[in-house]
Amino acid sequence: MKQASYEAAGVAGQSDALSAVVRHLQPSFAHLEGAQVITRFGHPASAIKVSADLAIVVCTDGVGSKTMIASALDRYDTIGIDCVAMNVNDMICLGARPLAMVDYLGVNALDPRRTDELLRGLAEGAKQAGIAIPGGEVAQLPEIIGSNGSAPGDERAFDLVGACVGTVHPDRLILGHALRPGDALVGIGSSGIHSNGLTLARKVLLGTGGHRLSDKLPSLGRTLGEELLEPTEIYVGAVEALRSAAVEVRGMSHITGDGFANLARLEAEVGYAIEELPPAPPIFSLIQATGRINDAEMFRVFNMGVGFVVIVPQESVDPALRAIGSSGYRAWRIGRVTEEPGVRIEPLGLTGGLEDGDSRFLRRGSA
Amino acid sequence: MKQASYEAAGVAGQSDALSAVVRHLQPSFAHLEGAQVITRFGHPASAIKVSADLAIVVCTDGVGSKTMIASALDRYDTIGIDCVAMNVNDMICLGARPLAMVDYLGVNALDPRRTDELLRGLAEGAKQAGIAIPGGEVAQLPEIIGSNGSAPGDERAFDLVGACVGTVHPDRLILGHALRPGDALVGIGSSGIHSNGLTLARKVLLGTGGHRLSDKLPSLGRTLGEELLEPTEIYVGAVEALRSAAVEVRGMSHITGDGFANLARLEAEVGYAIEELPPAPPIFSLIQATGRINDAEMFRVFNMGVGFVVIVPQESVDPALRAIGSSGYRAWRIGRVTEEPGVRIEPLGLTGGLEDGDSRFLRRGSA
Repeated sequence: MKQASYEAAGVAGQSDALSAVVRHLQPSFAHLEGAQVITRFGHPASAIKVSADLAIVVCTDGVGSKTMIASALDRYDTIGIDCVAMNVNDMICLGARPLAMVDYLGVNALDPRRTDELLRGLAEGAKQAGIAIPGGEVAQLPEIIGSNGSAPGDERAFDLVGACVGTVHPDRLILGHALRPGDALVGIGSSGIHSNGLTLARKVLLGTGGHRLSDKLPSLGRTLGEELLEPTEIYVGAVEALRSAAVEVRGMSHITGDGFANLARLEAEVGYAIEELPPAPPIFSLIQATGRINDAEMFRVFNMGVGFVVIVPQESVDPALRAIGSSGYRAWRIGRVTEEPGVRIEPLGLTGGLEDGDSRFLRRGSA
Repeated sequence: MKQASYEAAGVAGQSDALSAVVRHLQPSFAHLEGAQVITRFGHPASAIKVSADLAIVVCTDGVGSKTMIASALDRYDTIGIDCVAMNVNDMICLGARPLAMVDYLGVNALDPRRTDELLRGLAEGAKQAGIAIPGGEVAQLPEIIGSNGSAPGDERAFDLVGACVGTVHPDRLILGHALRPGDALVGIGSSGIHSNGLTLARKVLLGTGGHRLSDKLPSLGRTLGEELLEPTEIYVGAVEALRSAAVEVRGMSHITGDGFANLARLEAEVGYAIEELPPAPPIFSLIQATGRINDAEMFRVFNMGVGFVVIVPQESVDPALRAIGSSGYRAWRIGRVTEEPGVRIEPLGLTGGLEDGDSRFLRRGSA
């Protein structure tokens, strides 16, 4: 059996786009007068300084092919949580406070029940994240979404994307500059596959493995569909708990597509060593075994149990773990900041990083 | 021949969603502490007051099925302008200054040339609007975009969505409260079909009419494809000119899907009478004649030559026309604010309005 890879599953070719992004869009920063873009491409969100004490932060992300699980199960009341999660988890990495999200729902066909369920999930996500959803957009695109433009379309197909705005004091923007070798990496648990790697997961489990979403798998304790649809964890509460506990946070990373390589997005001349791995949720070993996927690929595509990383001074590990733990999340000290550059997963002997630090547009995470 | 209608062309059924939007998402406004949503659903953008002198404004919109014209012509270097236009034109209606947009590009397949051209259009749009594009997202969704999940997909298919942030002083937010009967409606010219009604236009012209995009039509003076792909006008410069000229603006409306009925989104207990119609660009008479579409439907789906409306005190009409004209736009006094509610297009004897004032999510404009 051929080893499955993310590229083979249909998510590839994104690396060409970076230089084009920078070449075409960086000049747009100069259009602003009295305001200033203070982030570069590559961070999970962008900050625009509008006054001495305020920067507006903005980001956008979608839930990718996770919508196909929702459509297949005909259950739409949780994927809005994923949409909020993918956005607010990106935004809080910069130390920003998320305020509001607007959503874009592109559908093949509008259906009141589906829309109602989708809105219910968005509302629940907004509640968990403490944000408002003051507006949004629905576009009915019967020839584009769930359709190749000619053959009959898939009425249930949809794409769900959010864009989040928040604020941060410009002096408290966290981009990674404060990171020092020896700082500690604290990993916060994921709820499962989140909204990344669903294309590969579906290909492996439903294709190679011949499973159906309705299969109740002993290792999961529920159906495969329920497992894959489990909403993405929202980490706003964990980061707020650290702030309340006055724990100094020097860097944060939302572990989405590219896995721990996302750490390399931080602006610091350091490296990252993962020294201990918490046990990965069983869905990942199922995917790995079924697809005969090697560790490197698994850790590149999936969160493997750690959905968010907070980097704190070594002496703050215990207060950090206490604060995060008491806010209802599982957290572990998983590694340290190193002088040597790159990202190493030591228990597995893996070394990696981003091929290009400015890969914001190129995130493989969304599919 | 059956009369074509927007519903028949596949864009329908959105009216059910409104009560669900308000029911599910309005409670999210209460999540904010120290910040406040100061708009209601129904406006083209949403404002969040973060301090006594600053509100952050956010909106999202896509270019709808106009991407199908770009894909068919295999030309992608202008649709980014449409994406910027659809967003900034919404935002400026509230009196806000657009600062930045993030874009979401969902594709069937990534292709360096297509991406490069798309980015070039986004850059040009950013330049015209005076905004930065500091980040964005690309998602490769080969089973959702341009695909029904099974049959071979359309590699060129894509969806392009933007989300824009800007700022406004809370006291200078324009929602329509200052409108008074007798105020004058100033219409600003569109560049053609913009990003609305493409589904109907394609159905009529390519279906019923049997035209091809490569047909050079005498009434258009160019090919049908070139005409339909003409970028949406960006009205930022016109509104800035009014500000520079210190013209008091009491209300603004981006004439997208729903046409002049968009005026009814303004928060004022008034009505709107269109008294004079500027000549519509020839593409509209072509669509109307080919599809045997009545005036009511044409004015409900298309901008009919007026892409933006500014409402000023009667005595400010001349300064407004001068300011807008000298900034390079065509503008006309097209009507007045009335005591009688509703939207009337007097030269055609049409009466209308939005069925529901809170139809922000229900805009038919995106397809």
